[in-house]
Amino acid sequence: MPRLDTTARGVYLIAVTPFTADGALDLESTDRMVEFALDCGVSGLTVLGIMGEATKLTADESRTFVGRVLARVAGRVPVVVGASAPGFAPMRELTASVMAQGAAGVMVAPPHTLRGDDAIAAYFENVQATLGDAVPWVLQDHPVATGVQMPAKVILRIVANAPGCVMLKHEDCPGLAKLAAIRAASDAGGARRISILTGNGGGLFLPEELRRGADGAMTGFAYPEMMVGVCRAHDAGDLERAQDLFDAYLPLARYEQQPGIGLAVRKHILAERGVIASAHIRRPGPALSAVDVEDIARLTARQQRRLAQLGA
Amino acid sequence: MPRLDTTARGVYLIAVTPFTADGALDLESTDRMVEFALDCGVSGLTVLGIMGEATKLTADESRTFVGRVLARVAGRVPVVVGASAPGFAPMRELTASVMAQGAAGVMVAPPHTLRGDDAIAAYFENVQATLGDAVPWVLQDHPVATGVQMPAKVILRIVANAPGCVMLKHEDCPGLAKLAAIRAASDAGGARRISILTGNGGGLFLPEELRRGADGAMTGFAYPEMMVGVCRAHDAGDLERAQDLFDAYLPLARYEQQPGIGLAVRKHILAERGVIASAHIRRPGPALSAVDVEDIARLTARQQRRLAQLGA
Amino acid sequence: MPRLDTTARGVYLIAVTPFTADGALDLESTDRMVEFALDCGVSGLTVLGIMGEATKLTADESRTFVGRVLARVAGRVPVVVGASAPGFAPMRELTASVMAQGAAGVMVAPPHTLRGDDAIAAYFENVQATLGDAVPWVLQDHPVATGVQMPAKVILRIVANAPGCVMLKHEDCPGLAKLAAIRAASDAGGARRISILTGNGGGLFLPEELRRGADGAMTGFAYPEMMVGVCRAHDAGDLERAQDLFDAYLPLARYEQQPGIGLAVRKHILAERGVIASAHIRRPGPALSAVDVEDIARLTARQQRRLAQLGA
Amino acid sequence: MPRLDTTARGVYLIAVTPFTADGALDLESTDRMVEFALDCGVSGLTVLGIMGEATKLTADESRTFVGRVLARVAGRVPVVVGASAPGFAPMRELTASVMAQGAAGVMVAPPHTLRGDDAIAAYFENVQATLGDAVPWVLQDHPVATGVQMPAKVILRIVANAPGCVMLKHEDCPGLAKLAAIRAASDAGGARRISILTGNGGGLFLPEELRRGADGAMTGFAYPEMMVGVCRAHDAGDLERAQDLFDAYLPLARYEQQPGIGLAVRKHILAERGVIASAHIRRPGPALSAVDVEDIARLTARQQRRLAQLGA
Repeated sequence: MPRLDTTARGVYLIAVTPFTADGALDLESTDRMVEFALDCGVSGLTVLGIMGEATKLTADESRTFVGRVLARVAGRVPVVVGASAPGFAPMRELTASVMAQGAAGVMVAPPHTLRGDDAIAAYFENVQATLGDAVPWVLQDHPVATGVQMPAKVILRIVANAPGCVMLKHEDCPGLAKLAAIRAASDAGGARRISILTGNGGGLFLPEELRRGADGAMTGFAYPEMMVGVCRAHDAGDLERAQDLFDAYLPLARYEQQPGIGLAVRKHILAERGVIASAHIRRPGPALSAVDVEDIARLTARQQRRLAQLGA
Repeated sequence: MPRLDTTARGVYLIAVTPFTADGALDLESTDRMVEFALDCGVSGLTVLGIMGEATKLTADESRTFVGRVLARVAGRVPVVVGASAPGFAPMRELTASVMAQGAAGVMVAPPHTLRGDDAIAAYFENVQATLGDAVPWVLQDHPVATGVQMPAKVILRIVANAPGCVMLKHEDCPGLAKLAAIRAASDAGGARRISILTGNGGGLFLPEELRRGADGAMTGFAYPEMMVGVCRAHDAGDLERAQDLFDAYLPLARYEQQPGIGLAVRKHILAERGVIASAHIRRPGPALSAVDVEDIARLTARQQRRLAQLGA
Repeated sequence: MPRLDTTARGVYLIAVTPFTADGALDLESTDRMVEFALDCGVSGLTVLGIMGEATKLTADESRTFVGRVLARVAGRVPVVVGASAPGFAPMRELTASVMAQGAAGVMVAPPHTLRGDDAIAAYFENVQATLGDAVPWVLQDHPVATGVQMPAKVILRIVANAPGCVMLKHEDCPGLAKLAAIRAASDAGGARRISILTGNGGGLFLPEELRRGADGAMTGFAYPEMMVGVCRAHDAGDLERAQDLFDAYLPLARYEQQPGIGLAVRKHILAERGVIASAHIRRPGPALSAVDVEDIARLTARQQRRLAQLGA
Repeated sequence: MPRLDTTARGVYLIAVTPFTADGALDLESTDRMVEFALDCGVSGLTVLGIMGEATKLTADESRTFVGRVLARVAGRVPVVVGASAPGFAPMRELTASVMAQGAAGVMVAPPHTLRGDDAIAAYFENVQATLGDAVPWVLQDHPVATGVQMPAKVILRIVANAPGCVMLKHEDCPGLAKLAAIRAASDAGGARRISILTGNGGGLFLPEELRRGADGAMTGFAYPEMMVGVCRAHDAGDLERAQDLFDAYLPLARYEQQPGIGLAVRKHILAERGVIASAHIRRPGPALSAVDVEDIARLTARQQRRLAQLGA
């Protein structure tokens, strides 16, 4: 099985967890979702994140879902599993379990109680000690969700102290200056260079993030092909093409990033596209109104026309 | 001088406060900004909001700035002044002062300590008692800034209890369902109909908000003509034209809405457009990097090409 | 096994989770802790709460610990188990598991994202549906920890709608007015009367809470005999004796309630008293300084002298 | 007029702002309050803090109140004035005004948006630049109110960079370890020694704070003589006497520190003691119930008996 390392690039798709219309785990849709993502050209998958409704799964369901994803992926791309936990014992337990199942690495966000640069740095030294040197891990910097602000300096301290940290999931919306500062530090030789994938919702700042040295994106969007296309055009040096593609999808990406109902929009589109059988979200969770559904249909139709104009 | 009332429609522009390069209040730029906004077709102006750096002005400067705006506007459109205050005595003092200067009404957001539907409703009964029946006021619902969640039901209670409340500044991002629920209540005859202007940054959900019954927008964007154009096309029943215009400005509007540096982007563009003499922001405040400035130039050039294609 | 019901009174002790000096679950200390609590006269036990380091246990450890406590208690008093979870599926799973092991009921706090009276009420209707009618449950109102403010009115709505809710853990520090309002509603016949145990740390407002109609306390303190004694004196109508006892322990109770290091103080004292073998706290967690330990020794010695004067 | 400096010791009382029963500023009570505080033996006064209802005063009322306090104090002790403001221009304006009136220094807390050690340090460099070298100022560290956590290291950085910072108001409840760390740094010669007065409500940890090197307290309590007595006994080396006094007042001090209604308790007692004419609090503010008033009467009577036993 592939292990995550600092050379990771491209799009790591944050996968949804498919449920049947009556709320059970939907393993056939899980298989389809994996194939869909790979067909879109993603470089990796991330499961059990916030948008994966991880906290709504029982322990058994989590194991079953991760196992199914790993079995279907079958080593074709790395799979990262969310392992944030309020205590180190459950973090170690979950990590050991998913690594044994074949995960490529785990992702850890700080608990919402952390304050002060030193406390944050100390926490991640404990994470490193908990995970051990054999487990590659992703540092998730997502202040809106965690309430923890990690300045560039602190992230660089964590990277310096934790050999297992191979990637930053940059999600400090949009934090372009921070991203640039972290990349500048490794470019100048003063810091180990790790992979930086950006997590700002739906890639809403992806072109600007790539220009500041991001290696790609780790986020979710019902049209992952947009993010793949933008990354490829950027890598090919065609910045205008990257932005054209991005702009074509932007009205819908914006709509999908609405706080609160975003996941409902994403699952609705994925169901419309035939990727998952049902758009069901477990409670507590949002629902779309009839007008919301009309909005999505209208934006999708416009998007198709725009892409046709672009020859994309 | 015009008074704000429940029939208000169109775009009320949240004005910036112009400073000279060395940080002094810039009254000549203030005049130009007023004319620029009116040329763009705005229906009103709002001053001393968060994006107006209100808290960075001395009491004298606030009075001078409001007076200058009112003098220049000279009654051509209504001017709303932010009057949120932690206590009712300063709220009364500020309101009396700006109404005497010629403001059309004031705007009040709840203090960040309020919790519970009854506490919120009681607070705004006190606001009504403080302002008195002669002062029209805008209820600002902006949970990201205030931390106070006001369900539709609570907003309807406030409207029922406070005759002076003539407008909702809807800024619960994006809160399409809430907007629809409030409008549905007055459509069904169960509530007094007030004006609803949406405040989500730069109008990022303006087309969807108009379709749910918003009367326009009260927000800031360096291209107010976009919001005016979208509102006009919507009013004319041309939803596709509204969306075409919106989409053309969206990449830049998104860029301007970055938390943290948004105001710096806005002032930079306004300075580039010749509206204000300097993009100066008082400390504490953000600054743009060279790459940010390149981003803006690139997005602006693309926007012009797109608008040309639209014949706009 | 006893089931929790609305007649519950007295002290339900929030139990610590004992670890050995090297961090393993300490089951022998668990047995001693149970006997110690029963010797102190507690009416019930609560396990897997925040002060029980619940989030630092693996799933296996949680099951083992709860099983050990239940086996040792052997039906002598009811045991309540914390079952708050971000999703309903894991809440149902955990509840089914602990009820099968012999728990008397579960305790549920709202997730920190809830805002607005209706949203809170709706959440607990879902909780009731998840737990089913056969499981008695405790509503935990602890705004400092959850960020969710539940006005008295909302608590009364939850009680009206959820037949399984038999107890309120009142922890809105100190919220004397809210407690009085909830009790007044059932006294007036307008609401079902449920048990109210107060959770404010170490019982720091216990005499005042009992006078407003609380039935006892559900909290932790290294001297549970204080809370038992205060409740008994109050029940016997000897308010001055209740306050004398309370005052004697107050300097130490105050010290133990320090945010951050409180649990370390509690475990230190419990280890000094021979209840648990080690004061070990799993990371991330606080540690005492040498001066802190001196403080505790001094306060404990003074407390003993004071109790001797009282003949207690 | 005396200027605040790093040798400040003893009790700086956070003064209430007295209102008449109909809500007007009560200047005669202001005079009595000043004399009362001086009679109690305070070393200084602090006005316009949170507990002084500063935000509920109009600009004119603030000036009048500060002027009256300063006139009455007439240089007998230093008077510190709260000058926290969201922007530097109003901070400079307010500071200039109160220093001209005769204040001994100002007090500044960080704005609630600050995150990250460097951002906090940078903010206070701006404060120093704003206030200039001639104005002594107090750094207020009060995370519960501001949401800003300042580790000991950051406080030491601020002290190193800001020559005008002469005092820390230590209010990180209770933060005994932090207080000890800051004092240890100056004891070891690695940092400039500044005055540390503790602000934890009513001095609830005053004996422990003094033992860790605090120079006294800057907080409010309706019995300032307790804090003065504890400081004096501690300075005289009689730690048991200090603790005896403290314990005698603790039940009431605890009661007065209830979040939400604390200020109502304090003003009620001050009115009972004849210090202020009315316990009026401006809206929005708390009110006492009849039971609360009974509680206070009972606790006060017990306190008097206890003090009589101590011969105090």
